Amino acid sequence: MSRRILGIDPGSQRTGYGLLDVRGSGLSPVAWGVIRTDSGGSFPDRLHKIHESLSEVIRIHRPTEAVVEKVFLAKNAASALKLGHARGAAIVTCRMYGLAVHEYSAKEIKLSATGFGSAPKEQVGGMVCRLLGIREPVLPDASDALAIAFCRAVTRDHSP
Amino acid sequence: MSRRILGIDPGSQRTGYGLLDVRGSGLSPVAWGVIRTDSGGSFPDRLHKIHESLSEVIRIHRPTEAVVEKVFLAKNAASALKLGHARGAAIVTCRMYGLAVHEYSAKEIKLSATGFGSAPKEQVGGMVCRLLGIREPVLPDASDALAIAFCRAVTRDHSP
Repeated sequence: MSRRILGIDPGSQRTGYGLLDVRGSGLSPVAWGVIRTDSGGSFPDRLHKIHESLSEVIRIHRPTEAVVEKVFLAKNAASALKLGHARGAAIVTCRMYGLAVHEYSAKEIKLSATGFGSAPKEQVGGMVCRLLGIREPVLPDASDALAIAFCRAVTRDHSP
Repeated sequence: MSRRILGIDPGSQRTGYGLLDVRGSGLSPVAWGVIRTDSGGSFPDRLHKIHESLSEVIRIHRPTEAVVEKVFLAKNAASALKLGHARGAAIVTCRMYGLAVHEYSAKEIKLSATGFGSAPKEQVGGMVCRLLGIREPVLPDASDALAIAFCRAVTRDHSP
């Protein structure tokens, strides 16, 4: 059975997404991009934009599962609150379409791409894009989302 | 034009809701309750429960606007992150049904019910229930949600 994994890197200003197909041991990138929500509008409007744009991505590309980075700590309570809203909007949207939402830690994501968990965050997305054979430039939020999807694709736990 | 205000007090374990009708200068409580999400299940499942239950409340009672408490600070980053998820799920659900989502600070909510902004939080919900003529016991999360709706109903800004 082929799987299509939707990786999401939610944020209150930019939400990255990236889709990977898994067929046997082969991985191929399908689509990726960034949902921008920093161009004004109220905070509820920005959350709604995340929901609407992510819904469109799901309707067009029909992933079979979703994955987000597990977050233990944010810089401070104010940024944690904003990040939480964005993650809540993204997770609810995935669940609305019946997608299971998996979570992996930053360390697991780094490990899967680079072989060691302490690689600088900036290197991980770029490394995953090279591993996937993407030659064009990819925006950081989108490459982070592809790295999250990649982690899900190559780890052993394939629970639905 | 009559208005029906949906007040929401989101939380990762319990989300209170309360609906008020505003007709001229009259206010009447319509329905209230608590969505419990603390009975197990993954965190995404709990957010989905908030979304589904709140959707049902909106479909049944057809509010014309929604209101949540504005949050500036949470106790710490971990609780802010959880609260943010729950608020994000609730706000996105309201916006999906085309409802504007207003925000009032804890101080504004207290002021509207008690005449002074430093009343103990526990008193506010109970006071609003008395003002609304509700004689039966109301769970704290639901009475907090009614207080939030009450604040919206009695403040001057009636932007849609």
